[in-house]
Amino acid sequence: MTKSLCERLFTQLDSFPLIDPHTHIDPLKPAASSLADLLGYHYYTELAHSAGMPRERIEEAGITPAERVRRLVEGLEPLENTVQYSWLIEMCQRFFGLADDRLTIANWEALYESSFTRMQQPDWAMHVLAASKLEAVFLTNDFDDPLEGFDTAIYIPCLRTDDLVFHLARPAVRERLERSSGNSVTKSADLRAALAAQFAHFCQRGARAAAISLPPDFSPRRVSEAEAAAALDAVLKQGENATAADRQTLACHVFWTLADLCDEHRLPFDLMIGVNRRVYPGGVYQGQDLFDSRVSLIQYRELFNAFPRVKFPISVLASVTNQELVAYSWIFPNVLTNGHWWYSNTPEFIERDAAARLEAIPQTKQIAYYSDMYKLEFALPKFAMYKRVLAKILAERFVLDRRWSEDRAIELGRRVLRGNVEAVFFAQD
Amino acid sequence: MTKSLCERLFTQLDSFPLIDPHTHIDPLKPAASSLADLLGYHYYTELAHSAGMPRERIEEAGITPAERVRRLVEGLEPLENTVQYSWLIEMCQRFFGLADDRLTIANWEALYESSFTRMQQPDWAMHVLAASKLEAVFLTNDFDDPLEGFDTAIYIPCLRTDDLVFHLARPAVRERLERSSGNSVTKSADLRAALAAQFAHFCQRGARAAAISLPPDFSPRRVSEAEAAAALDAVLKQGENATAADRQTLACHVFWTLADLCDEHRLPFDLMIGVNRRVYPGGVYQGQDLFDSRVSLIQYRELFNAFPRVKFPISVLASVTNQELVAYSWIFPNVLTNGHWWYSNTPEFIERDAAARLEAIPQTKQIAYYSDMYKLEFALPKFAMYKRVLAKILAERFVLDRRWSEDRAIELGRRVLRGNVEAVFFAQD
Amino acid sequence: MTKSLCERLFTQLDSFPLIDPHTHIDPLKPAASSLADLLGYHYYTELAHSAGMPRERIEEAGITPAERVRRLVEGLEPLENTVQYSWLIEMCQRFFGLADDRLTIANWEALYESSFTRMQQPDWAMHVLAASKLEAVFLTNDFDDPLEGFDTAIYIPCLRTDDLVFHLARPAVRERLERSSGNSVTKSADLRAALAAQFAHFCQRGARAAAISLPPDFSPRRVSEAEAAAALDAVLKQGENATAADRQTLACHVFWTLADLCDEHRLPFDLMIGVNRRVYPGGVYQGQDLFDSRVSLIQYRELFNAFPRVKFPISVLASVTNQELVAYSWIFPNVLTNGHWWYSNTPEFIERDAAARLEAIPQTKQIAYYSDMYKLEFALPKFAMYKRVLAKILAERFVLDRRWSEDRAIELGRRVLRGNVEAVFFAQD
Repeated sequence: MTKSLCERLFTQLDSFPLIDPHTHIDPLKPAASSLADLLGYHYYTELAHSAGMPRERIEEAGITPAERVRRLVEGLEPLENTVQYSWLIEMCQRFFGLADDRLTIANWEALYESSFTRMQQPDWAMHVLAASKLEAVFLTNDFDDPLEGFDTAIYIPCLRTDDLVFHLARPAVRERLERSSGNSVTKSADLRAALAAQFAHFCQRGARAAAISLPPDFSPRRVSEAEAAAALDAVLKQGENATAADRQTLACHVFWTLADLCDEHRLPFDLMIGVNRRVYPGGVYQGQDLFDSRVSLIQYRELFNAFPRVKFPISVLASVTNQELVAYSWIFPNVLTNGHWWYSNTPEFIERDAAARLEAIPQTKQIAYYSDMYKLEFALPKFAMYKRVLAKILAERFVLDRRWSEDRAIELGRRVLRGNVEAVFFAQD
Repeated sequence: MTKSLCERLFTQLDSFPLIDPHTHIDPLKPAASSLADLLGYHYYTELAHSAGMPRERIEEAGITPAERVRRLVEGLEPLENTVQYSWLIEMCQRFFGLADDRLTIANWEALYESSFTRMQQPDWAMHVLAASKLEAVFLTNDFDDPLEGFDTAIYIPCLRTDDLVFHLARPAVRERLERSSGNSVTKSADLRAALAAQFAHFCQRGARAAAISLPPDFSPRRVSEAEAAAALDAVLKQGENATAADRQTLACHVFWTLADLCDEHRLPFDLMIGVNRRVYPGGVYQGQDLFDSRVSLIQYRELFNAFPRVKFPISVLASVTNQELVAYSWIFPNVLTNGHWWYSNTPEFIERDAAARLEAIPQTKQIAYYSDMYKLEFALPKFAMYKRVLAKILAERFVLDRRWSEDRAIELGRRVLRGNVEAVFFAQD
Repeated sequence: MTKSLCERLFTQLDSFPLIDPHTHIDPLKPAASSLADLLGYHYYTELAHSAGMPRERIEEAGITPAERVRRLVEGLEPLENTVQYSWLIEMCQRFFGLADDRLTIANWEALYESSFTRMQQPDWAMHVLAASKLEAVFLTNDFDDPLEGFDTAIYIPCLRTDDLVFHLARPAVRERLERSSGNSVTKSADLRAALAAQFAHFCQRGARAAAISLPPDFSPRRVSEAEAAAALDAVLKQGENATAADRQTLACHVFWTLADLCDEHRLPFDLMIGVNRRVYPGGVYQGQDLFDSRVSLIQYRELFNAFPRVKFPISVLASVTNQELVAYSWIFPNVLTNGHWWYSNTPEFIERDAAARLEAIPQTKQIAYYSDMYKLEFALPKFAMYKRVLAKILAERFVLDRRWSEDRAIELGRRVLRGNVEAVFFAQD
């Protein structure tokens, strides 16, 4: 009974048009141009590398896309159990007609050719969007992105702020900020003006969120003007040689200023909490980051209290932080749950994390899922994975355990999958 | 098969008369006097607040109970998915004949009236106890509670000690202690005598436990007499301006003395570990506390070793601490598991935490559940939620996976639900 | 459907011959010589003690094995719910023909006698191995074990290094090292030579791994030669009175040297992370250790980067660390998952931990299970417990959710249960 119930619920959940609230899509090149763009996704390069393929073989410069695909296909067998591999297969089946349930040295070439032909069609990206029932996707834009040349109703700008908060000690970052904002950044007031200029630019171009990823040891706090000025001064003089304390103070100050600008511009501030960058410098591109699960949302206590009007959709990297996220969203009006991020984006973690959220947090405060994708083709299998888990949770915990009607369960699913994305990011308040 | 098996087990588990080992019932006013007492439970006010209702609207002074209910009902829609909401509906259906599965602006008034009539009946509290199969409930008494005017066989005193351990720096708390104990508190020996007087008073009035909730950073330790005297001296002189170190030392000293008095009086000491108070000062009443899940029972190592005869029934706020609780209960004879507390009291967390306990800890060392309620009406839906999860665990993990008979599974359920409450708190040893 | 599917999968998984990659078997006395050897396993003594039996009664010297069994049987009733108890019953049923599903004061004597007779048969150990489908078991050998008198093809040496890393301050340990290696240990170079001699000895005798258990606060780092020399000097002079800092530095240095020798000898280095020793000194033998779950694999970042050629099969004591283990194995080629250790070796924790691994880590990098047993009889029920959980995961998450064929699911099971033990520990690279 449960199995057919799950399938009925999945079919309904799978019928809603979606807006993907966090991706890394390049709006000028949103879809893949060959299988190399799909197999080159860090999930496959890092897993193939982890299973034994040398980084040099994966990342060798100058090889053709087809050769890159061939090499990676050779390294896929050890990954066939993973859910990440299942995304690849589902995507190849749905978009490119793969008939097998594996991608091997025997069948990759035919797939490469047939998929290549399809990807060259001028409306390929729009076809993928339509087949995936995606009406729009949020981008991840550098702060100095001109945001030009694309339809911002489909590709929605989102101001990514990691560089501003954590890398202002790098002269190149400061120069980018000065150039794009038209402000010099020599004292604290200038810095705020420069940041404000970026917000104005983004909001004018239809941005719907600011976003940042944060290391586990980051504890934002309000920094006094004098402290901020001193830290900025030190960083301007010494760049990356400034003390850790000065750089941390400046990071806090910039972060706080960004939150303040979010408040001013009524922009939600997506916080993605818990990543340590470059833990494994010998890893492949984008396959070097890990985490320390010893992080707590208590570190954000001052922030949540200081900005009651700013919505903070929060992603946590470690599932062990999910219960804190549930509790903080249950208590703080401005804290919302946002998707299942990266190392928590596999069915076992999604299942327990999503169930805990659906049982205890107001249904209006949960953004179910985002794909985090770099190419449009990945939304379909990633959302499908999530929706299968969601169908299971709704079937077991709501329809069976709590005797909800199927319609009521589907309505809850629609709300967290779609309705809340609109309510949170597109509200006219 | 599993579903009907679960239902059979639930029916049996639901037939046992219970003693609720931890509540906040006021024995002079144990049941609700209107729906406002039920909707005013912090679970509803804090969730309605979190979903957007202003605190001022919820807590406005001087409005009628009916008006308060009307306002909260207007804010319930966003919470309809939560299990906390399901407690409310089940309670209204069972006690007040609510026919719908939602409480809305369209049906609340009729329910308010009909429930109000029932609650005014003189035997309402006894009716609720009987309908909930509750034979007795533990209270949470201030240390200076006179414990008079109620039947201590039904409303069992429990000495709550948070104020003594953490707020002795407040003159008002010291005055309450001096007044109720008849001892001055000017030196360490006096302090112990004052505390001893409270224990004597409570034990004379039938108290069956002492209890305390503890912040995640608390690490109890034995404090030397000289250290204790110095800390008490500093706190007496400076009150809440005493240094954090002096206040912490005094807290450790009082806590240790309480454990020693528990030993002397053979009183179990309920530890509720992990809450941070007033993390969100802008929250509604009782809706301001959260936690930092980075806590370990290793912090209690010295305590558990020092008091082998004191039973420590332990609740942990964060499910991530449950495995430590399982392991410490498995090894230390004096450590027991106690219920599913607050932010861990939702089905997903209960399910995994209870399963882990039932599989690995002696069956004699597990107190399954307490309601933590403020009004008697909540025991029924909260225990029912727990018993549904327990039935599922027993069905899947014992009857199916381990081929236990249903009778044997029910016997285990009876023991953890009822038998152990008697064995732990009412043993004549 | 799921139930019969699980059973079909279990039957297949249960048919593979196995190599147990971590045990504490004494190769000169691998099987039990009476029930006392089985009931004396710390799981039963510590649980009986935790449930109320005095340590003195359990560990009294000079009593007969039968009397020890009688006493423990008297204390078993409180443990009947535990999975540890189920191992005992399954073992007694399978090896000694116990017909009941409980071991009681009424039936223990007959079982004692009949089992005793069987255990005296000269081929008993070989019989147990065959009945358990075990082809070989890894040992846990002291660094100065002569490794003589047994068949190293069945009983595979493994160099246990805890004493070397953490107890070199004890004169007795240093003397054992000097005696067995034939080297004095008076300066850093000598120390390395002594350690190298032990590696040479173990490898010559067919060792297939080095292993160590580590406390939660250990953070290995490369120590400079000068630092190492100074620390060794301090420890040589002051023994256990050396400062914590000097002892920690020496521990890091020895650990790093061992990793380097593993690299040189192509020996995998099993890390068992997270145990605190002697937390409960009043506990029974081997029932005194617990843990602090606040540990992170980020502490091993420098190690994993420094030794890319050394395979690190990693066990974590706390299930809350499992997600880090999944992520680190997914990224680092030299990090592998290894079994379900100690307090995480119960079905609820195994189920979630194993599911998360199977979904996200290359199938070649997961060593499913080891028994950790002290007597051969325990492999059968412990592996059976694991295989039942594995069958359930494969049924639900692969055959049903991902539409795998049963054969493909069984192939994955075979790989993690058996294939990877060979590939990781017996590779000729």
